[in-house]
Amino acid sequence: MAESENGKDGKSAAKRPKIDAENEKRNADEQSTDNPVVDFQLTRILRDNPREKSIFIHGKVKDQDAVVILEKSPFRQDSLPELLKTSQLKLEMQNDVYSTYQLHAPPQLNEIKTTVMCPATEKHIKKYLHQEVFLLEESGEDYRNLTLPYISGQSFSVQWVYNILEKKAEADRIVFEDPDPDAGFVLLPDFKWDQKQLQDLYLIAIVHRRDIKSLRDLTAEHLTLLTNIRSKGEETIQKKYGVPPSKLRVYFHYQPSYYHLHVHFTAVEYNVPGCGVERAHLLSDVIQNLQLDSSYYHNRSLSFPLRADDGLLQRFREAGKI
Amino acid sequence: MAESENGKDGKSAAKRPKIDAENEKRNADEQSTDNPVVDFQLTRILRDNPREKSIFIHGKVKDQDAVVILEKSPFRQDSLPELLKTSQLKLEMQNDVYSTYQLHAPPQLNEIKTTVMCPATEKHIKKYLHQEVFLLEESGEDYRNLTLPYISGQSFSVQWVYNILEKKAEADRIVFEDPDPDAGFVLLPDFKWDQKQLQDLYLIAIVHRRDIKSLRDLTAEHLTLLTNIRSKGEETIQKKYGVPPSKLRVYFHYQPSYYHLHVHFTAVEYNVPGCGVERAHLLSDVIQNLQLDSSYYHNRSLSFPLRADDGLLQRFREAGKI
Repeated sequence: MAESENGKDGKSAAKRPKIDAENEKRNADEQSTDNPVVDFQLTRILRDNPREKSIFIHGKVKDQDAVVILEKSPFRQDSLPELLKTSQLKLEMQNDVYSTYQLHAPPQLNEIKTTVMCPATEKHIKKYLHQEVFLLEESGEDYRNLTLPYISGQSFSVQWVYNILEKKAEADRIVFEDPDPDAGFVLLPDFKWDQKQLQDLYLIAIVHRRDIKSLRDLTAEHLTLLTNIRSKGEETIQKKYGVPPSKLRVYFHYQPSYYHLHVHFTAVEYNVPGCGVERAHLLSDVIQNLQLDSSYYHNRSLSFPLRADDGLLQRFREAGKI
Repeated sequence: MAESENGKDGKSAAKRPKIDAENEKRNADEQSTDNPVVDFQLTRILRDNPREKSIFIHGKVKDQDAVVILEKSPFRQDSLPELLKTSQLKLEMQNDVYSTYQLHAPPQLNEIKTTVMCPATEKHIKKYLHQEVFLLEESGEDYRNLTLPYISGQSFSVQWVYNILEKKAEADRIVFEDPDPDAGFVLLPDFKWDQKQLQDLYLIAIVHRRDIKSLRDLTAEHLTLLTNIRSKGEETIQKKYGVPPSKLRVYFHYQPSYYHLHVHFTAVEYNVPGCGVERAHLLSDVIQNLQLDSSYYHNRSLSFPLRADDGLLQRFREAGKI
């Protein structure tokens, strides 16, 4: 629920339909006999991401609703020499040692990944529709009066977390465990990380204790747990992946996407969604804050982003808090 | 100096050569007579950004060093119908309502922006070479023993800041001023924002006081200044741009890229470089922390990213801190 536009951590990645993986190879070299979007009638742009060169479009194909996602492909290092040799360049400007061009590449060296959902349901369309994001400021009192009742009423299941902790699921993915019931945790790769390269390293530490919903519940009582996660998490990642603590960003989300305490370990150079100051809280800061004041996260006003369609935002609106 | 890979705030944008602006139109419709990169010999990839579909390459053109930057262009909403109609689609997989394709577009509808620097100097090459980033943890003592002497020794000029405060430069860009010598500040658009759309709104508040280098110098004495910046900055942005406080991310950088206290106001949905939890500090958190403990930023260990070639990192290394 309290998931920002960027909030795709934890399990949510695993829940998305695996449209790419399974059949990708099967039809790889087949040429489609017809262009399914040749008579596409554009209804509206659902979302435009100029920085990442992707766009999400709603339209009609033969009277059926369709969602089309276009995304330019990254440069392939192995085809760069061919790209530069075989393209046409149109000069735009020249000044001293600098010149700029528009490069016209052979289409097969400059592909656009295209995903078509047809017929698309209202749910597909809503999923891709850009939702405005608001920054809320939640006081400790707001948490107890609005957020906590909302969370409790939603009965979000964290059964999948318990399955991991009890080794009923994903046991083979666990890279470290401290079984201590108070200070212990399991460490495993996040689903968004394919573990093929270290640039986008992403692991999650999930605590064994089941009574800590989020940052808001932390007090000085939990300092042993937190310093344990920090030291053993960093040690494991150094040993297993050769990545030292100075290359890691270690943090909580608030709001988290599920209410069982967990810590994110990501490569510091990886600009991962959800690492912005408006949602992330460095573990090292949290430890110091609790050392200073045990009730720091109990009393403090915390800012976090919410999408316009989030139920919690609605609660804050009804209470006249925005 | 203490500028992370992403640290391009404040004035640094203005210092970069204006390679695009001046001559862009002049040669707009000229076709280049030859392809300057047709005999480009690739030396190495300086930087690859698959998420943003850009790549920085070092190579040789006729025995001269050259840097070539390639960046795929964003989708143009006005040419989408033509793009979909005139492209070829190669089916990759089909599963239920989902199908994926590689789209082969006419080259003029799928341009690649190309920047060539030739002959390129060592400085050009170094500028674009990816630098490893490390996360440092600086204690209050480290600040006084290592960082402060380093900053002071570098004699970074902030004359351009004084020029703004004294209306000797950029006076027409100021959108608000509170002239009070203690609690006052000027607010103006950051150079990275062209003010043409609100999606990437970015303003900077620069304080009139000249004795506050950064977050580290702040105490409870400065609370009036900080709450003043927050309330008048938000009020001005709401009035002038129609953007309410709930759509703003308001924060400091630590390390900042120049040592005269300033506050960043950016659109909350704009994933701007430097807004990550490892470098940004929300103004609302800073205010609360100083209310709790006037010496919070004097004593606290603060984490921040530094590029491998940063002189400050070298100091920390020599002192055995990493």
